[in-house]
Amino acid sequence: MEKSKKIYLDFASTTPVDPRVSFWMQKILKNNFANASAIHNLGVETKKILEKSRMNVAKIIEAHGDEIIFTSGATESNNLAIFGTLENVKSIYPHIVTTNIEHPSVLEVCKHLEKNKKAEVTYVPVEESGIIDPKKIRKALKPNTVLVSVMYANNEIGTIQPIQEVAKEIRYFNKVNSKKIIFHSDTTQGINYLPIRVERLGVDLMSFNGGKIYGPKGVGILFKKRKVELTPTIFGGNQEFGLRSGTENIVGIAGLSLALEITEKMKEKENRRLTNLRDYFIQKLLKLSSEIKLNGDLYKRLPNNINITIPRLPSDLLVLELSARGIFVSEKSACKAGEAGNSYVVEALSRNKSNSGKICKKNDKKIGSLRFSMGRQTTKLDIDYTIKSLAEILKKLKRWYN
Amino acid sequence: MEKSKKIYLDFASTTPVDPRVSFWMQKILKNNFANASAIHNLGVETKKILEKSRMNVAKIIEAHGDEIIFTSGATESNNLAIFGTLENVKSIYPHIVTTNIEHPSVLEVCKHLEKNKKAEVTYVPVEESGIIDPKKIRKALKPNTVLVSVMYANNEIGTIQPIQEVAKEIRYFNKVNSKKIIFHSDTTQGINYLPIRVERLGVDLMSFNGGKIYGPKGVGILFKKRKVELTPTIFGGNQEFGLRSGTENIVGIAGLSLALEITEKMKEKENRRLTNLRDYFIQKLLKLSSEIKLNGDLYKRLPNNINITIPRLPSDLLVLELSARGIFVSEKSACKAGEAGNSYVVEALSRNKSNSGKICKKNDKKIGSLRFSMGRQTTKLDIDYTIKSLAEILKKLKRWYN
Repeated sequence: MEKSKKIYLDFASTTPVDPRVSFWMQKILKNNFANASAIHNLGVETKKILEKSRMNVAKIIEAHGDEIIFTSGATESNNLAIFGTLENVKSIYPHIVTTNIEHPSVLEVCKHLEKNKKAEVTYVPVEESGIIDPKKIRKALKPNTVLVSVMYANNEIGTIQPIQEVAKEIRYFNKVNSKKIIFHSDTTQGINYLPIRVERLGVDLMSFNGGKIYGPKGVGILFKKRKVELTPTIFGGNQEFGLRSGTENIVGIAGLSLALEITEKMKEKENRRLTNLRDYFIQKLLKLSSEIKLNGDLYKRLPNNINITIPRLPSDLLVLELSARGIFVSEKSACKAGEAGNSYVVEALSRNKSNSGKICKKNDKKIGSLRFSMGRQTTKLDIDYTIKSLAEILKKLKRWYN
Repeated sequence: MEKSKKIYLDFASTTPVDPRVSFWMQKILKNNFANASAIHNLGVETKKILEKSRMNVAKIIEAHGDEIIFTSGATESNNLAIFGTLENVKSIYPHIVTTNIEHPSVLEVCKHLEKNKKAEVTYVPVEESGIIDPKKIRKALKPNTVLVSVMYANNEIGTIQPIQEVAKEIRYFNKVNSKKIIFHSDTTQGINYLPIRVERLGVDLMSFNGGKIYGPKGVGILFKKRKVELTPTIFGGNQEFGLRSGTENIVGIAGLSLALEITEKMKEKENRRLTNLRDYFIQKLLKLSSEIKLNGDLYKRLPNNINITIPRLPSDLLVLELSARGIFVSEKSACKAGEAGNSYVVEALSRNKSNSGKICKKNDKKIGSLRFSMGRQTTKLDIDYTIKSLAEILKKLKRWYN
């Protein structure tokens, strides 16, 4: 057991900051502390950095500068997209369509709206593969539907959703019915590896952040198409085109902008490298034990994501055993009787007839899941060591395992 | 004219980051990038930094750790305090009491609630001194009042509000009428110089941020007394005791915590030094021209704040002239006909009978104001140079001035 080893396989949870990004942020922090709203020279300099960062993001996702709203993160962006759309709608009882494997920052907003009778929500269940059927989204659309929210790639199981096809279905429905249903996508997990040009994706609103793309935490983006109108969720000094008040976090914004640029440049090559590594990893894992089950589609998943279920073995115990060996991965605990389960995503794969994603039955212990998410620092040696360690752990825990 | 000179007198707008804080943040950024919610060792390490930072803040303001909620800034904290209280209240048409010189992140929230008929709001006007009369707050309380929000010190004119007396009035009203009116204070501007022990202040909710105390931007705090219940404004992964979802901005949080600690240590000495400097500055300014008027109370104001009105001279022009001489100050423009005025605070000083703070009359050009806000880097030499430059500018602009 090599005690000094540190293998971080939790990149989907959060990424380290790229040294180039951190260097740039340090520079801004020193020189551009003035308030971007100030009209004196120092304020103007800060404002320039802000607008350059905005234009840079806009260029990369092929949007206009005034379509980029800086927020405090993807959670806030998702909240602003949904609450902002709903607040702006005049209809009495608006309807939202989403999926049963969205991130909590989408699902919890929907539940809050339902609870307060401010909207009705349809949670379209994903297929067993963890992928949504665009036709099922179409079927869920109603005359009072105002918003569809479908994530680009899932944070737990990494499955990639057919965003373009969903967008087409919505466009068609809008055209035929003279509607203006807005399409939002949480692209936080997709942004590292998938195409993100907004016109091609067909999204009206798109959320992502810095903390998952080797940039700073505490800063995010909401792309908002010009034609889309939102009511703000945070009020005050009317920064960010009146949609997000509060003194601009210029250091974070500049860092996020550069991080996105670097991510975009590395995307193709990293994609190829990690896809090979992922497939190698999965192959080795499935050989470890016939009981290990891969969650989510084998191919239509992010190149850095491996999510497995090892029946009967508590996933949190596995994480701690791996951690003791210097390997850092993520898990979603199995259901605890009487509590809402954390593993609603993995659960959804086998329960695709229900549409709530909430129910958690007793004796559901077997569906705890383990997520290995790779990143720029991950090597084949890391994977080999991880497989070796996992084999040791499974052997050690045999008495639980059998 | 010394072109290379740079005198920053806009510390109330935002402060540079203390080098000790920036060094600490850099360290966290390198070593503690893991998600604080992860249960592996790296996650646990991040969680430790998070909780140490929280306890440090709690200790300084003499609160409990679970009363400290990290947010993305004071604007969000103010929004959460007000929306969160209102959403949690069961009464049909709740009433809020505030003042007519609050920060936009309080006033705009109140206006939004009024507009949507979710609350009725009383804007108690300040006296000519820019200070609120606690008795007028008491008189504004009604059976349906649920929240009072009064800032600790004003961001434009620096006047200090009698928070303890306001708290006493509310406590008395609550006792006599068996009510539970909540008292919130936006202490963003006060925190650098005034006592901030929450029990002594008598506040239930208190907002401030990093960007005004030589810490990072994009991170703030809402102190929330245990007995107070709030509904969140941002939903998702239930971080921050369920009150503020989103991956914790650990670098910002650690920086803010250290910045507060340093501020607290320097407070007494800086207070004395800046009070002397302020009084010297004011004396010199008033000697420059008999027309120059100091806005706000001469003594009950922050030690770093000087706010003046120079009649007939456009304040934005003065800022640009000063900026050209390397002096960076802030202004609030005079009213533009037909638009809501920016200078509502200075305006409120002469219109203390109205209670909206919104009305802006034509020909109100004369009430543009200039704010000099000093800080840790400000010296007597800076003040002398500023006075000299302002004298030159006034002479140059004589044709406007007369």
